[in-house]
Amino acid sequence: METKILKGKTVSKHIKGNLSKIISSLKDEGIIPGLAAVLVGDDPASQVYVNSKSKVFESNGCYSKTYKMPANSSEQELLNLIEDLNNSSKIHGILIQLPLPKHLDSKKILNSVDPMKDVDGFHPVNLGSLLEGSPNFIPCTPNGIIEILDYYNIETSGKHVVIIGRSNIVGKPMFALLAQKFKVGNSTVTMCHTGTKDISYFTKQADIIVAAVGVPEMLKGDMIKNGACLVDVGINRVEDNNSEKGYRLVGDIHSESVLGKASSLTPVPGGVGPMTITMLLYNTVKSAQLLK
Amino acid sequence: METKILKGKTVSKHIKGNLSKIISSLKDEGIIPGLAAVLVGDDPASQVYVNSKSKVFESNGCYSKTYKMPANSSEQELLNLIEDLNNSSKIHGILIQLPLPKHLDSKKILNSVDPMKDVDGFHPVNLGSLLEGSPNFIPCTPNGIIEILDYYNIETSGKHVVIIGRSNIVGKPMFALLAQKFKVGNSTVTMCHTGTKDISYFTKQADIIVAAVGVPEMLKGDMIKNGACLVDVGINRVEDNNSEKGYRLVGDIHSESVLGKASSLTPVPGGVGPMTITMLLYNTVKSAQLLK
Repeated sequence: METKILKGKTVSKHIKGNLSKIISSLKDEGIIPGLAAVLVGDDPASQVYVNSKSKVFESNGCYSKTYKMPANSSEQELLNLIEDLNNSSKIHGILIQLPLPKHLDSKKILNSVDPMKDVDGFHPVNLGSLLEGSPNFIPCTPNGIIEILDYYNIETSGKHVVIIGRSNIVGKPMFALLAQKFKVGNSTVTMCHTGTKDISYFTKQADIIVAAVGVPEMLKGDMIKNGACLVDVGINRVEDNNSEKGYRLVGDIHSESVLGKASSLTPVPGGVGPMTITMLLYNTVKSAQLLK
Repeated sequence: METKILKGKTVSKHIKGNLSKIISSLKDEGIIPGLAAVLVGDDPASQVYVNSKSKVFESNGCYSKTYKMPANSSEQELLNLIEDLNNSSKIHGILIQLPLPKHLDSKKILNSVDPMKDVDGFHPVNLGSLLEGSPNFIPCTPNGIIEILDYYNIETSGKHVVIIGRSNIVGKPMFALLAQKFKVGNSTVTMCHTGTKDISYFTKQADIIVAAVGVPEMLKGDMIKNGACLVDVGINRVEDNNSEKGYRLVGDIHSESVLGKASSLTPVPGGVGPMTITMLLYNTVKSAQLLK
């Protein structure tokens, strides 16, 4: 069987195309969707993430501003900044770049973001509305996966989906999406995690597998059934002396052994990865429409 | 195999015993946990439910007041009442008896309850916190099931649980509880629903089954594996000419065919049913402690 490669870049381009029409009609009304990225401290990886987000926003006709705060900022200073951003008419989406320095209460800070500007979809109100089946902002990575499945016409209704990993960012919202009676959804969903005794027992039965565990190449060809659709959320660095950088990026799926057995696969890189920022843009544009 | 009967009444009595100590120590501080039940219209079944809730609260040393509103109340009248109750120091829990008359926006009205007094656990903030793994108020029926499993030492960690039914009141919060790394939880969870092609394919693999579908006796002995633990959330009326009332109550599980095959079963009535009001009492007492 030839394994179809589900390219996030292609889907991402398609979505940005649709968004560009909305962005230009908002512009006609004098509205430019605006993202505030709050960056505390100087973690180089966080810096890179925030920069790449800004770049995508600006190249798509949106506004983006990064608020850099020193690593020793107090909780109150951060809460004050967020309150200003909650009230700012130029800002439609607020992103708190994680991880925050340890002396800060991440939960309290994330929860202080106005749910109507919570474009990450991490606020309990947004997670709860999603679980209820009436989502407002959906977390970006799971929503990006839904868009990939939709774009490539992967049937989910009545299918058995196995999700590996119970993170708040991917696994749990992914469950909440696929179990609903949505266009992409209505699946029988099984959630596996570190407490699951034999993950392969479940993955061998799955029509669709979403691997979001952060363990390099853990899902191998002998753990899937013929024709399964595989979604790889992992991005892991593994040592590679043949590479200039000394490492290479691999997913949670061992692509070599699943190619030819799976019906489709999101590659790493270039699969789910590019969708996350695109869905952040999507949520921010949606917020600009809702708040106008 | 002898099927152990998991008696909700026994568990309920045990929990009320623990609560009575907290209630009397709150009383020493001049605090009486108070529930406001809001009843719109004169649906007789709703009347019965609200009355039985009041009775349980009063017989356990708590305060309960029913706010009866005419069926043609406006949304604003209801929102005003809820605002008063949100601000009342005598009220720690607010219950909006469902269903509401059709001209009212149930979602808007439920969401106007202060999440800190949402003892039903239906507010998106509470559902979202539950999904995140840091619950405040947990919906009463799923929480009651957790208490039954805990009381009878039914191992859930590493077990495969199949939940049938994706309601916001039972199925989805049940999933959110059992998938977490909690004392009662850490299960591999599969959610089945009307979109599942062959429910028995999944139930035959399950160590624990939670049936919450509202279809009389749908889960039969040939759909389970030997030794499964069965939780029956259904309460269905079926015609019965031999009964004085002309009907009898049955669950979603066909008890006759599972007895002797299942390791344990919650009966109907007397299983999950009695737990719901007990957990409402539990949440209200908890709220009185948190709000003091």
